[in-house]
Amino acid sequence: MSELNIKVYSDLMGANRKWADKTRDLLKKTNTALINLIGSPGAGKTALLESTFKALQGRYKFAVLEGDVETTYDSQRLARLNCPVSQLLSGGSCHLEAKLVHYALKDLSLDELDMVVVENVGNLVCPAEFDIGEHAKVAVLSITEGEDKPAKYPLLFREARAVVLTKLDLAPHLSFDLKSCLSFIKGVNSEIPVMQVSAKTGHGMEPWLEWFTGLGCKG
Amino acid sequence: MSELNIKVYSDLMGANRKWADKTRDLLKKTNTALINLIGSPGAGKTALLESTFKALQGRYKFAVLEGDVETTYDSQRLARLNCPVSQLLSGGSCHLEAKLVHYALKDLSLDELDMVVVENVGNLVCPAEFDIGEHAKVAVLSITEGEDKPAKYPLLFREARAVVLTKLDLAPHLSFDLKSCLSFIKGVNSEIPVMQVSAKTGHGMEPWLEWFTGLGCKG
Repeated sequence: MSELNIKVYSDLMGANRKWADKTRDLLKKTNTALINLIGSPGAGKTALLESTFKALQGRYKFAVLEGDVETTYDSQRLARLNCPVSQLLSGGSCHLEAKLVHYALKDLSLDELDMVVVENVGNLVCPAEFDIGEHAKVAVLSITEGEDKPAKYPLLFREARAVVLTKLDLAPHLSFDLKSCLSFIKGVNSEIPVMQVSAKTGHGMEPWLEWFTGLGCKG
Repeated sequence: MSELNIKVYSDLMGANRKWADKTRDLLKKTNTALINLIGSPGAGKTALLESTFKALQGRYKFAVLEGDVETTYDSQRLARLNCPVSQLLSGGSCHLEAKLVHYALKDLSLDELDMVVVENVGNLVCPAEFDIGEHAKVAVLSITEGEDKPAKYPLLFREARAVVLTKLDLAPHLSFDLKSCLSFIKGVNSEIPVMQVSAKTGHGMEPWLEWFTGLGCKG
């Protein structure tokens, strides 16, 4: 008799989709927008959220679900600003799954929030494949990563509703070719808006804040 | 009758391991070293290889297997220097699997090479989980990514035999805390050597080249 070494999985993607659908129902009921922020490790996702929170504090209500493989460092950064935040640990996984996001959302007072932002695990590949019930994926790309990333990791840029180019303040010290980067993005997703920001100096934040709050407000 | 929606996989990790074992046999036979270079998108892996090739050209023989989700941009960069290079496209996957690496290795004249370097897909999470038969994983971390990455993505730093901190030339323009980064690395892997380099200026390349060539040389 031959030795069988077989693992059986149920349809993982299908199960994930079901939780994402539950989340869509929940968000519809409470009229809350959900953003899924995706980018490489160190792309500046948390810094963007810090600046966004500071700029909108008092006039727009959002909470953050911080996704990380390990540690609570990023949620601590946001909590220090009094931004409502929960930490989602992926348990070694390279992306957040819809079920974990759904349970974390259910623990929030969604009725009182205009939006929830999920900062996904730092990874330009896998998180783009997993629907978490979001209204929009946003691709965050630091200009320190080089202009060719949209062509090399196209799925995210195809799936996203907006791109935020970060760390623009470092431009004088890099050989980053902005024109070529924009053309790589256009090659993958011709209609997508691209916002160029420096969370450090505040440069370019206004168009981003306008796009962000435009996704939904209970007013 | 209930609808069944079941996918069956054979043991993927086991199959991967078998190909990695075949690669280990092959490398032993030809006395060739294999490095698995892992880091985020834009961490400077290709730039490090460009500088390494230029410095060792003529006295040490290595070839590169360039791993990418899409495009052949990185292999073009190395080919322009006359560095022997093959492009490995992961087909959308977030890491390279042992089988693909094995077939690419078999196409090289390993007898004539001191080493082969695999530049894995840009990703700080998944590639660390997949054995490709390498003698050493090397973690490449750009200082633009922030000092806390070794704590947030610990698996790679635990598995690696060396860490290369890159883009040191940008230090004056960043608030990167080197001391704290080194302590995060030590917290995960107390014995690992950490080399600080700037491929752009050549700063710190000597200790790296020494470590790199120390892995094996036929000459």
